[in-house]
Amino acid sequence: MTVRNIKLTLEYDGTNFLGFQRQKRGRTVQAELEKALQRVLQEKVKLIPAGRTDSGVHARGQVISVKTSSRLPVTRFVPALNRVLPKDIAIKRAARVSDDFHARYWAQRKIYRYHILTGAYHSPIERRTTTYCPYALNVTLMRKGAKLLTGTHDFRSFQARAIDDKSTVRTIYRLSISQKGRELFFTVEGNGFLYNMVRNLVGTLLLLGRGKITLSDLRKILSGRDRRLAGPTAPPQGLSLEKVFYPRSGAAPKRRK
Amino acid sequence: MTVRNIKLTLEYDGTNFLGFQRQKRGRTVQAELEKALQRVLQEKVKLIPAGRTDSGVHARGQVISVKTSSRLPVTRFVPALNRVLPKDIAIKRAARVSDDFHARYWAQRKIYRYHILTGAYHSPIERRTTTYCPYALNVTLMRKGAKLLTGTHDFRSFQARAIDDKSTVRTIYRLSISQKGRELFFTVEGNGFLYNMVRNLVGTLLLLGRGKITLSDLRKILSGRDRRLAGPTAPPQGLSLEKVFYPRSGAAPKRRK
Repeated sequence: MTVRNIKLTLEYDGTNFLGFQRQKRGRTVQAELEKALQRVLQEKVKLIPAGRTDSGVHARGQVISVKTSSRLPVTRFVPALNRVLPKDIAIKRAARVSDDFHARYWAQRKIYRYHILTGAYHSPIERRTTTYCPYALNVTLMRKGAKLLTGTHDFRSFQARAIDDKSTVRTIYRLSISQKGRELFFTVEGNGFLYNMVRNLVGTLLLLGRGKITLSDLRKILSGRDRRLAGPTAPPQGLSLEKVFYPRSGAAPKRRK
Repeated sequence: MTVRNIKLTLEYDGTNFLGFQRQKRGRTVQAELEKALQRVLQEKVKLIPAGRTDSGVHARGQVISVKTSSRLPVTRFVPALNRVLPKDIAIKRAARVSDDFHARYWAQRKIYRYHILTGAYHSPIERRTTTYCPYALNVTLMRKGAKLLTGTHDFRSFQARAIDDKSTVRTIYRLSISQKGRELFFTVEGNGFLYNMVRNLVGTLLLLGRGKITLSDLRKILSGRDRRLAGPTAPPQGLSLEKVFYPRSGAAPKRRK
């Protein structure tokens, strides 16, 4: 019996989920996926995600890996799973990967996007995937703040919960803010993210854009390594996990502790 | 007591409405708007829409006119109404207009947009505002069909219900199809639209794109003036009323019968 390791790329609308990770009670992406996988593969499976997303957070490029002894051809995974999955989850791609591939440990970089709408009203049509900010924002200043946060830093001030024995040093390769009419897109690319880190970075940059804090304050927040210094956690609906990068070769990357 | 005529431009997510027009039972855009207007203006009002939209159809640029004796400054309409409206309706703009302005009779042109997604899966995030088409489409051929439908024609074949004593001649100024990756946008601009006309045009052009009918068939469908000849009505969720055009001057346009 051949056991294959399958990598699946997926999109979901996080609105009606309590988050990715299975819980005792409540609807989760993991539970829906495992139910669909079990139905299609005719065996119990346990999936491994690149990362968990919180309640209300979306994904356009979440990745999971699943080991299966089913003989279903890899080309059949996308249509077979989409036929049984609920409408708010879809499989975009499926590929067979090496047996030691692990969606979480092998992830080298991730891109998150945070979508904000400013102006006189919140868009009814976009309301599930955007966060409304009624305040005028100084985008030039926010970009300076974004530049300050880019690079390798101890992001402890932007971590929701302190877990003392784990490193809170991460590298942000890119933190760009693009503007299109009344829309703002934050694109954050990094080698890993602490719990709620992207939403805390965005919440703090919004304070900067509103003039509630200065660049000098932002510098102090970063160096202070204390969550109480940073701004509020931006709401989940504006956030989406866009892409997860893996090494091209089959060689496993060095594991971050 | 001064009675003012106010023009309001609005956006709504049609997903959870039985359509625009008030009905005995069920949630409608009109009923929600009139409830909000009554609360803000402290008087009973009756609104006039540029046009009705069906159950599930969205609007990014619907227009209504409302007469009121309230003294609320026109600049307060947007924030005051948005404060009491449900999340799936928003007022974008408010302006005082001449007393004889009538959102329906004065409408000169309207733009509708129909959004289609092709490819291997339907997007969970976009599912409420797009129609999924799993078939390969010949966009070049569809554009030829769109050109054929542009202009002044008797569109009786694309009307849901025949109302014998009314003219079914309309002018389509533009019917363009733009493609962006796996997305297709139909933009239809016309001087007026029969019931379900845009959805029937799109449904028929999709048959053309799939190779189910030819350009010659399309010509016969148009000239046949019979609803049974045309393709199926495309689903409502892909459709949005984007913009309504009114004459710039205060002069009322000639009324179409």
